Amino acid sequence: MNMPNRPSPTFDENKVKITTDPISPNSKKIYESGILHKDLRIPFREVSLASTQVTEKNGDIRMEENEPVRIYDTSGPYTDPDITIDVRKGLDPIRQPWILGRGDVEDYTGRAVRPEDNGYRNHDQMGELERFDRSKRLIYRAKSGANVSQMHYARQGMITQEMEYIAIRETQKRLSLFEDAEREARLKGNSFGAHLPEVITAEFVREEIARGRAIIPNNINHPETEPMIIGRNFLVKINANIGNSAISSSIEEEVEKMVWSIRWGSDTVMDLSTGKNIHETREWIIRNSPVPIGTVPIYQALEKVDGKPEELTWEIYRDTIIEQCEQGVDYFTIHAGVLLRYIPHTAKRVTGIVSRGGAILAKWCLAHHQENFLYTNFEELCEILKAYDVSFSLGDGLRPGSSADANDAAQFGELETLGELTKKAWSHDVQTMIEGPGHVPMHLIKENMEKQLKECDEAPFYTLGPLTTDIAPGYDHITSGIGAAMIGWYGCAMLCYVTPKEHLGLPDREDVKQGVITYKISAHAADVAKGHPGARVRDDALSKARYEFRWEDQFNLSLDPETALKYHDSTLPAEGHKQAHFCSMCGPKFCSMKITQDVRDYAEEHGMEDLDAIKAGMDEMSETFKSTGHEIDHTT
Amino acid sequence: MNMPNRPSPTFDENKVKITTDPISPNSKKIYESGILHKDLRIPFREVSLASTQVTEKNGDIRMEENEPVRIYDTSGPYTDPDITIDVRKGLDPIRQPWILGRGDVEDYTGRAVRPEDNGYRNHDQMGELERFDRSKRLIYRAKSGANVSQMHYARQGMITQEMEYIAIRETQKRLSLFEDAEREARLKGNSFGAHLPEVITAEFVREEIARGRAIIPNNINHPETEPMIIGRNFLVKINANIGNSAISSSIEEEVEKMVWSIRWGSDTVMDLSTGKNIHETREWIIRNSPVPIGTVPIYQALEKVDGKPEELTWEIYRDTIIEQCEQGVDYFTIHAGVLLRYIPHTAKRVTGIVSRGGAILAKWCLAHHQENFLYTNFEELCEILKAYDVSFSLGDGLRPGSSADANDAAQFGELETLGELTKKAWSHDVQTMIEGPGHVPMHLIKENMEKQLKECDEAPFYTLGPLTTDIAPGYDHITSGIGAAMIGWYGCAMLCYVTPKEHLGLPDREDVKQGVITYKISAHAADVAKGHPGARVRDDALSKARYEFRWEDQFNLSLDPETALKYHDSTLPAEGHKQAHFCSMCGPKFCSMKITQDVRDYAEEHGMEDLDAIKAGMDEMSETFKSTGHEIDHTT
Repeated sequence: MNMPNRPSPTFDENKVKITTDPISPNSKKIYESGILHKDLRIPFREVSLASTQVTEKNGDIRMEENEPVRIYDTSGPYTDPDITIDVRKGLDPIRQPWILGRGDVEDYTGRAVRPEDNGYRNHDQMGELERFDRSKRLIYRAKSGANVSQMHYARQGMITQEMEYIAIRETQKRLSLFEDAEREARLKGNSFGAHLPEVITAEFVREEIARGRAIIPNNINHPETEPMIIGRNFLVKINANIGNSAISSSIEEEVEKMVWSIRWGSDTVMDLSTGKNIHETREWIIRNSPVPIGTVPIYQALEKVDGKPEELTWEIYRDTIIEQCEQGVDYFTIHAGVLLRYIPHTAKRVTGIVSRGGAILAKWCLAHHQENFLYTNFEELCEILKAYDVSFSLGDGLRPGSSADANDAAQFGELETLGELTKKAWSHDVQTMIEGPGHVPMHLIKENMEKQLKECDEAPFYTLGPLTTDIAPGYDHITSGIGAAMIGWYGCAMLCYVTPKEHLGLPDREDVKQGVITYKISAHAADVAKGHPGARVRDDALSKARYEFRWEDQFNLSLDPETALKYHDSTLPAEGHKQAHFCSMCGPKFCSMKITQDVRDYAEEHGMEDLDAIKAGMDEMSETFKSTGHEIDHTT
Repeated sequence: MNMPNRPSPTFDENKVKITTDPISPNSKKIYESGILHKDLRIPFREVSLASTQVTEKNGDIRMEENEPVRIYDTSGPYTDPDITIDVRKGLDPIRQPWILGRGDVEDYTGRAVRPEDNGYRNHDQMGELERFDRSKRLIYRAKSGANVSQMHYARQGMITQEMEYIAIRETQKRLSLFEDAEREARLKGNSFGAHLPEVITAEFVREEIARGRAIIPNNINHPETEPMIIGRNFLVKINANIGNSAISSSIEEEVEKMVWSIRWGSDTVMDLSTGKNIHETREWIIRNSPVPIGTVPIYQALEKVDGKPEELTWEIYRDTIIEQCEQGVDYFTIHAGVLLRYIPHTAKRVTGIVSRGGAILAKWCLAHHQENFLYTNFEELCEILKAYDVSFSLGDGLRPGSSADANDAAQFGELETLGELTKKAWSHDVQTMIEGPGHVPMHLIKENMEKQLKECDEAPFYTLGPLTTDIAPGYDHITSGIGAAMIGWYGCAMLCYVTPKEHLGLPDREDVKQGVITYKISAHAADVAKGHPGARVRDDALSKARYEFRWEDQFNLSLDPETALKYHDSTLPAEGHKQAHFCSMCGPKFCSMKITQDVRDYAEEHGMEDLDAIKAGMDEMSETFKSTGHEIDHTT
């Protein structure tokens, strides 16, 4: 029997093609340039809109333009028709000149790829998947004594290209709306006292990075990335998990999972592959990914010891870390907070330890009667990570697996240790975020966020959901999307998606999309609730389009234009109805939006004074009505 | 062209059958009986569970029983295999003897059905849908001077059958677990000072109804209902909207929409039919519905004046109200708070007035330069409703249709008027709930709930969503499920569902299910967060089953057993895998739950003392580690 042995998705098409169509009609890729660093090209998706038809009092019809809406775009070059995609070449390494320009890296001969890196323990075998041509690719690390982390640069007062790129990318309003001089001043600007400034300046980005309140996951060996930031004073981000297939059919299949996730809005992608061909799969993904790639290195390390946790060693783990640093992984989930003393607290739980990483390390600790080797070797981990600018994502190996276990001693004990480790990482200027649960009922979510901010001194929080109830397997994108929206509002910086298949099986293409869209909803709802300036621009443009029956604009501005169009057409398929001044729910005569328009016309015609006069008269009448009591007999 | 002209769902199967299968294997319908009223039969769904296999230290295997889980059941007789369903006869009128037994009602010759009641304005025509045989059915109203509302009884100190029924239905713990005497004492018991008592007593129900903090929507002409309660000290309820089809093919089709909604958990159903055959459609739905039916009478009234709001009159509306009271509608949405003085506040909104009822009344007010006739005739409405015990659902005709318009002057002005009307209704002992928005970003939701409680003196709140962002047409069950969960937690008593087709088209069978399940998630997450005693029983039982790889139990306890099973089988179809001690996400060797079991076994074997000893040793080591700093050179 073919036993699937990996966490995520199966795209079972026989011949997978990389998706490169535009996300919607009237969408185009645009680029803004930098000011401090003029050669930056920061990508956005711009949706152009139809004009609004306004009827003047004299009956004349006037067209009123609607400004195009600029949308934060995670989809990378795949949606730029001017760029030819060739997965065997990989993406253009846009950050290469920036990295080399800083003069603090050296290339070197990396670690040779071994059969066990791909899950083959027989040394005559090698991965079956087509191998990436490494001959043209140099591997970099920090020069001896140097530290190439963005946090280090930030603390030195340096505004990197990455920081300016992010400043422009995160600003919701188009900078071109400002005068040149003003624009420049705003971008360079001084620190903002106010929370969530209207224009995110490069200096603000630098400060947040220096303070540890945000990270830019950007391995120097992954120069293909379009820089992005994770921190609670920026847009809330989301992550999608992918993994290799049981039968890796092709490079295209592996790359397409990533492309498909970022197309719908995933800001980072975690490659949770296990089993065979994981090194090669990861290589193909990284070389073709414009978003940061995260991994859980212990999964690969475990493969190297035939799946037996007790046979893991620091040396094997360390070797795996270096292997992945050289490939270009941008952040690592590291379960260094699973301490021996917390493990007994899980024994009486309803669902024990549900994190695989946590369970592997717990088993190792118990088998050896020793403390977690990731904890005891944490300083060395910092030394390695800062040589490549890989970020820590400190894993919550003891997260609750059910509502019953939320916020318990094991979970919060581990969180305190993650706080201790955060400060250790920061002492090396290593960028760090903290992973969080999991399964948490709504009334316990805020405590999670507050404790994380306190224990980890405001390092970014990155949570899985949380799921707010356990009773809906098959719908856990929704049970968790609720918790994700709330914790995002409370200050969580990144939300790890959950698909409908969670707890039940492996997500397919449609499940991945459902998970990503649900989490985009949560993240965006959080941005709006946090009052992120400009976050509501898209909501307002879409609502205005809806109100004015500009159907195509409504579809094009939505998170999933093709589904919106499909649902509309399933009721009103005719082309004419996309211009119809009514909607399918009520029909032409009975439409409240149409009636409202009449109300508006009336208000305009009669003027507010007239309405005030009516109001005055009515108030009088209302008083009479109240005083007489207006009792009427009940007769049928 | 066939223009759809009604709000909801299309079940386009040619030959619709009423769904009567059990909701899952190992589910059975059980009934508890009353104590004050011994003949009550309160229905539940009981899910029996497999035993847990426990391995003793000596290797012996012992089976540990898992108590069956009792679930609040909205599905009515349709899931009781002992009851034969015949839609042409309708359900057994179980409340008839209770109603007649109180001696305060009289039967009378009701209003004759007229062609226009079914949307036919030609008096030679009559509805095309098969007509319900009214010859066997008596119509009741209060005797002259009597008031038959549950609120009236409650205020007289009377505990009705409906109240005791609800007390047992709402108690999550099975009463049979108590001793007889204790059980009786608890049920009759005195008022609970504490919020959310463990056993809901009939007296507690009476007090909440008397106080106006909860309602029991139960028209005396709808004796087929299984009583339920809407109030914030009870389980959060949900509503599904249905409506007639463009081409009403059969009674079965109309009834099945209701049956399908309650099968998945809808606590009430609103019939939003418009156009043709609406009187007959409603009749068939009510006669076959075990849950309260709500309507928006102005939709039917508008049909009677050919869809022209300005031609509406109080007399036509009043006649429609009486028509529906006699049929057995349990609650009416009445937009009596749309006052002339609030209308100008909507002119500058992004989305004006989006409530159809609100728009109709606004147009009427402006056309006549008069105050809303529902407001000026409100006392007479109270007189009518109390004669049948129909509840007010005071409509929010000025609710926001977009995030931009949330919590504005129009919305909150209307809410203040609804508060004024609530007190007026209460002065007649008429049960009242208040409808709420709509589109509200997360940070503005709490203010809605708090203002509603204050203005309406804690009358139950009944909201549509709210949608927390506008950018996801096609996914508005999710954008609104987030807001619904939050407002439920804050104290909202009932949540009106939203389907994926909202804003786009007419929901089909699958959309209705998606909407109901999403809202069950929101309502249940709210119950758990509110700390409703016993709300987490189902979560914990499901989590325990999940942890112990009792797959079938996990499916059967879920909100949608067939989807959970289907998703599982899409990855691991073989029968054996439903007993497998691993799950499809990780495979047999790599399963964290399996490892946790090992950890637990280890903990048991070694005892906590042993672990404490390890911990002490580790702490020492950890101290050493911290003090030496443990700096290691970075070499690759």
